[in-house]
Amino acid sequence: MPDKKSLDAVLAHIDADIDNSLERLFALLRIKSISTDPAFAGDCKAAAEHLARDFTSLGFATDVRPTGGHPAVIGKSNGTGPRFMFYGHYDVQPVDPLNLWEHPPFEPAVRTLPDGRKAIVARGAEDDKGQLMTFVEACRAWKKVTGSFPVSITILIEGEEEVGSKHLGEFLKNNKSDLAADFVLVCDTGMWDQNTPAITTSLRGLVYEEVRIKAADRDLHSGLFGGAARNPIRVLTHILGGLHDENGRVTLPGFYDGVKDTPPEILEAWKKLNLTADNFLKPIGLSIPAGEKDRLLIEQVTSRPTCDINGIIGGYTGEGAKTVIAAEASAKVSFRLVEGQEPEKIRDAFRAYVKERLPGDCRAEFGEHANAPAIALDWGLKPLGAAKRALTEEWGKEAVLIGGGGSIPVVSDFKNTLGLDSVLVGFGLEDDRIHSPNEKYDLKSFHKGIRSWARILAALAEARE
Amino acid sequence: MPDKKSLDAVLAHIDADIDNSLERLFALLRIKSISTDPAFAGDCKAAAEHLARDFTSLGFATDVRPTGGHPAVIGKSNGTGPRFMFYGHYDVQPVDPLNLWEHPPFEPAVRTLPDGRKAIVARGAEDDKGQLMTFVEACRAWKKVTGSFPVSITILIEGEEEVGSKHLGEFLKNNKSDLAADFVLVCDTGMWDQNTPAITTSLRGLVYEEVRIKAADRDLHSGLFGGAARNPIRVLTHILGGLHDENGRVTLPGFYDGVKDTPPEILEAWKKLNLTADNFLKPIGLSIPAGEKDRLLIEQVTSRPTCDINGIIGGYTGEGAKTVIAAEASAKVSFRLVEGQEPEKIRDAFRAYVKERLPGDCRAEFGEHANAPAIALDWGLKPLGAAKRALTEEWGKEAVLIGGGGSIPVVSDFKNTLGLDSVLVGFGLEDDRIHSPNEKYDLKSFHKGIRSWARILAALAEARE
Repeated sequence: MPDKKSLDAVLAHIDADIDNSLERLFALLRIKSISTDPAFAGDCKAAAEHLARDFTSLGFATDVRPTGGHPAVIGKSNGTGPRFMFYGHYDVQPVDPLNLWEHPPFEPAVRTLPDGRKAIVARGAEDDKGQLMTFVEACRAWKKVTGSFPVSITILIEGEEEVGSKHLGEFLKNNKSDLAADFVLVCDTGMWDQNTPAITTSLRGLVYEEVRIKAADRDLHSGLFGGAARNPIRVLTHILGGLHDENGRVTLPGFYDGVKDTPPEILEAWKKLNLTADNFLKPIGLSIPAGEKDRLLIEQVTSRPTCDINGIIGGYTGEGAKTVIAAEASAKVSFRLVEGQEPEKIRDAFRAYVKERLPGDCRAEFGEHANAPAIALDWGLKPLGAAKRALTEEWGKEAVLIGGGGSIPVVSDFKNTLGLDSVLVGFGLEDDRIHSPNEKYDLKSFHKGIRSWARILAALAEARE
Repeated sequence: MPDKKSLDAVLAHIDADIDNSLERLFALLRIKSISTDPAFAGDCKAAAEHLARDFTSLGFATDVRPTGGHPAVIGKSNGTGPRFMFYGHYDVQPVDPLNLWEHPPFEPAVRTLPDGRKAIVARGAEDDKGQLMTFVEACRAWKKVTGSFPVSITILIEGEEEVGSKHLGEFLKNNKSDLAADFVLVCDTGMWDQNTPAITTSLRGLVYEEVRIKAADRDLHSGLFGGAARNPIRVLTHILGGLHDENGRVTLPGFYDGVKDTPPEILEAWKKLNLTADNFLKPIGLSIPAGEKDRLLIEQVTSRPTCDINGIIGGYTGEGAKTVIAAEASAKVSFRLVEGQEPEKIRDAFRAYVKERLPGDCRAEFGEHANAPAIALDWGLKPLGAAKRALTEEWGKEAVLIGGGGSIPVVSDFKNTLGLDSVLVGFGLEDDRIHSPNEKYDLKSFHKGIRSWARILAALAEARE
């Protein structure tokens, strides 16, 4: 177990070395590892190999391993006793619309925000390259200052989180013995606010469907055929336009089956967190919670299931006008799930809903991009308590336990395949614009994130005694 | 007035010269005069100049004249007596999706269709380059064989028909004296079927709107904000999905105000034309008329007003998945109008309909691409009778008078600004795929189209005696 003096020395080293830490993060951010677009497969491989070289230099036994998609990286330290597996992902979201970026997305730089904060701006600055590097840099500092790590560590970095981690379940199965550990640590979540650290203890699941409606066997002139020919865009908008009722509830039959109400005591605790339209929606130009009318805003974004249309396209979308009736139209539709909902049932209910509403002369084709259940973690886990203490010390404010609105499908894979619980600690902020143009990560998140992990590693070592 | 012998000589020359006629059409088809896309403004100008050179060679006093948009070409023959102004357009529709073209859209060629027909394949092969060249080639034959034209002719070719002829009304006003004439001839419509020539005596009007819904000031992560943030695609689909009721009627308040039922005697005549789902929809892969349930198919496509969504886009539309809530979504929505409907009222009703259904935190922006009333022509016009006789002679089958489903906005401008009636004769067929990939024009349409105009010019000269 490391003594207090070692930890202080490690923290001092982190402060002194922060510019180098930043330069190492920049090198990773320059790699265009967009996992959803096959054109960037080579960049994904390059990102994996870049990380592998870095892990090797830290003394991890490192491997770049193939999966059914983009490769994963495994790095293992020596050591006995409780082993902690850190999980992160090197892949990033696409960058379109590119014209909205104030600087090229793969040319990272530190910029000053209007309120004076300094931030790293680039695609992946937060999600997840910036976040995963907080852990790697904490490891580097411990290694540099003390010659070893406080606990045994396995690092697993995948390249398909942004496309639903679709090959990772199988990968975990196939590499079970190499991935033996006692707990998982994940850095892909957020703080409660700029000054309040948080541990995420539940995550929503995700069903992500693509639906394509086809009618005529070609595009048609709306002057000749308008009025007589089935219009797939009209069919698609009519069907998707009925997915919510006037109270913001999803209309799929059985959608809310198995969904539990939040216990009153948790609701009370959440009310104290004071998440309001003013502090949550105003920064993004909105003012009215758009979800279920009878739910608190914090429920709408964490404990209630939702449906969103993430993309839609059909017909002529260029400049000007074209009097066309398109042969097809398609949409990407996703559902955020909570504990109690079964992804397969939701997917089937959605497909049945579409098919039942198809008029004559139309066909519907479906594709599945993601299918993962929600997860809820045990609030009493020992490492969770250790992480909470360490975070509270670093930030000078008690760390809070919260529910997360997003999905990290692999967390349930860790539980189901490897039998491992995960502790989710992250330093993202609501204004990080992840998945959007001008994604950023506060320099403070990065710097104090590294310090936080350095402390957490020490606390985990202490907790195992 | 030309004698029978002159006409026969002209027709014989047309037959002998058809390969050269085709080569001249090909030269025009190679020019990428896509009017809606500013990137092709130079090509539009080139098309105008190409035609002007040709008209000059035929002895027309020719001018390329600026408009508020792409230039127009005016060619005037000498001569006194009734003057006929021929109208056509050199601009064409965009070619996307390009990958569906079997041959490059601007490399015209004659190809054999599966049923043995020969067809010219290229963007604009029919609409309207092929059609306008039938008239030009007929003039060329008269000039070559007899040294003059049977009647006085003005040719007006514009370059913005595919974008709603938005500057032509003003152009007609500004060039009123140069465009003095007695009747207008238009070649931008179709035959009844492959063997039955037709004159179009009514045309639907067009209101073409663009609507953009905006919510948050940036794209958002659906995991963080899903459930609380207003989704513009959801709003747009909900609003557009309600534009029709379950009987196929448009739900805009007042939409059908002023629309008259087709007179019983016309309905009877139309029933005899036997337009069925089998012969009209089956060739495009459909089987069920999708318009108002209580109307004949021929009414749905000619005498009844309609609403179509011509394009829609929002959010992530690339390969794979992106968990984004878009900042905005937009659609192109058009209305085909019939006699009695006022375009401004329809446009205002649409905008009001959208605004009334906008939830909080949303804004709607509108743009207008077209706004033209329907037109109905006088069936008793003298030149119309002459054209009918000439067409019947050429095709050996009585020419029919029909209503057209599409819009040629300039026809009402001719009436309102210049006080001129139009005679609409064209040789397009339903399977010409105009506005779609692999647009074609039957070689028979082109060849017999030229012969038809040669006969019509003679008949017009005869009729004026």
